Amino acid sequence: MTVTTPANVGETRGLPSLGPEATALLRLLDDTFESWGVAAGARPMTMPPLLPAADLARLDYYDNFPHQAVVAAPLDLERRESSAFCTDTGCFPCDALEPAALGLPSASCYAVYLDHQGQQVADDTLVTVCSWCFRKETHYEGMRRQLGFRMREIVAIGAREHAETHLTDFTARVQAFAEALDLPLRREAACDPFFDKGGSKALLQRLTPVKHEFLYEDLAIASVNTHRNFFGERCDITLTSSGGPAFTSCVAFGLERWLSALTRRHGSWEAATQAVLDANARTRADASVAAGPVI
Amino acid sequence: MTVTTPANVGETRGLPSLGPEATALLRLLDDTFESWGVAAGARPMTMPPLLPAADLARLDYYDNFPHQAVVAAPLDLERRESSAFCTDTGCFPCDALEPAALGLPSASCYAVYLDHQGQQVADDTLVTVCSWCFRKETHYEGMRRQLGFRMREIVAIGAREHAETHLTDFTARVQAFAEALDLPLRREAACDPFFDKGGSKALLQRLTPVKHEFLYEDLAIASVNTHRNFFGERCDITLTSSGGPAFTSCVAFGLERWLSALTRRHGSWEAATQAVLDANARTRADASVAAGPVI
Repeated sequence: MTVTTPANVGETRGLPSLGPEATALLRLLDDTFESWGVAAGARPMTMPPLLPAADLARLDYYDNFPHQAVVAAPLDLERRESSAFCTDTGCFPCDALEPAALGLPSASCYAVYLDHQGQQVADDTLVTVCSWCFRKETHYEGMRRQLGFRMREIVAIGAREHAETHLTDFTARVQAFAEALDLPLRREAACDPFFDKGGSKALLQRLTPVKHEFLYEDLAIASVNTHRNFFGERCDITLTSSGGPAFTSCVAFGLERWLSALTRRHGSWEAATQAVLDANARTRADASVAAGPVI
Repeated sequence: MTVTTPANVGETRGLPSLGPEATALLRLLDDTFESWGVAAGARPMTMPPLLPAADLARLDYYDNFPHQAVVAAPLDLERRESSAFCTDTGCFPCDALEPAALGLPSASCYAVYLDHQGQQVADDTLVTVCSWCFRKETHYEGMRRQLGFRMREIVAIGAREHAETHLTDFTARVQAFAEALDLPLRREAACDPFFDKGGSKALLQRLTPVKHEFLYEDLAIASVNTHRNFFGERCDITLTSSGGPAFTSCVAFGLERWLSALTRRHGSWEAATQAVLDANARTRADASVAAGPVI
């Protein structure tokens, strides 16, 4: 085992830096997942790095994940003569800040639903994005559990069947890729409190899981998620075909966690990188046999 | 002129989303600038998206740019029963937040100096990174003046001569690229209050500019900056050769601003993209003639 996780001071804060090998492998993985989305017809977009807290509140984010939430605010220079930084605590006291109107996203797809709010969409809309995401945790561990990390998502917005097929298709794709990588993954139902805790949708979620994770050992490195028409309703995204609220679902890849899993499995950055290159060549060849040459 | 800036609601907040054409062109530009760094020997790295406020304070950031500063904090769930979001203001009041221990970076290179703190470096160290940067402004304009934007930097750390040569080399490189792009750029001295306002270094800065910007019309799209041994001293980065503090300098590219300049100059995403591809082919060919084949 020649890999060590980045041994820099940022790691204990959940904010490590990545060296050249990790930077390149993360990019290769992200390009791979993005290309799956594009091949399926997704528009590659770039979402804002901060979102209005009011929008996230409207999506129940602060009710469902208050313990994970991180918000952003400018310094309040009217109330303070100086910048008010406290060297004893290493912090700005909260009364040195303006009210916080912006939130750091915890998942890449929130911004996609907000970007489509008030819009009519085709039944088979797909979007793919990669964003920095932020979750406060009780402890951090480099590449496995970070305060800031990157999440590539391929998001379906449209008809109910489109949202369902999206997850079926990409579940198969993730499993085929893992097999080509010789990376044993376990698929498990998981629970995200996306919906009102007491409501009928929460009951439905307990009966029919809305999230499945793909785990390497104990580490979830990808997930497929269905939200029914929750985001379609909250963001007023309607179908051009029927005028009804859009259904949404997403496939998410925790990119730093893929680095952790692949280096643990293959023993070095070089071997992990080669495994991804080989798996890409192999799965691309398989897709060509199944669907004709890829252009 | 077929280009419009992204007409989404995030634009007025300085946080627009980018569509597929802009996403692809930004990536092409970033790859181009990164490749210049790599060709010169830079290590491509990834820096944390948030930095300790204490570290930024130690670099005088909150003294020099308090009006631009944005900080991050978790919700204080001990003090509040609920998440305390105020729907009237669309904000979390500041007393609903924990003290802010983290800052959003305003430039990509701060993290690089902090990442090297306490280290000994070779005389000719080069690092390249691309990070989201954040600056509060009094108004925003899509792709020209954003609250959140991306900055590719190529950073020199090492001997005084290395830091100086870095800027000379990349000034020539930026100018040759601009010429190949048929993008008329003006080079102007600019002023950044990096150093104590009253100190001798500030006086020196007024006498010898430490920052030059490259402007298209009225828009600065790149800059070259020298910091003498300021960051070397503050971050205790020393030279292996002499044991003295490292000198630093950086070349910075405001990527969204390049999108603005190129689409304005060339009239469409397609033409702007083709111009970059052609310029890359041309400048690469010139480099081959000058330095032999590029491997």
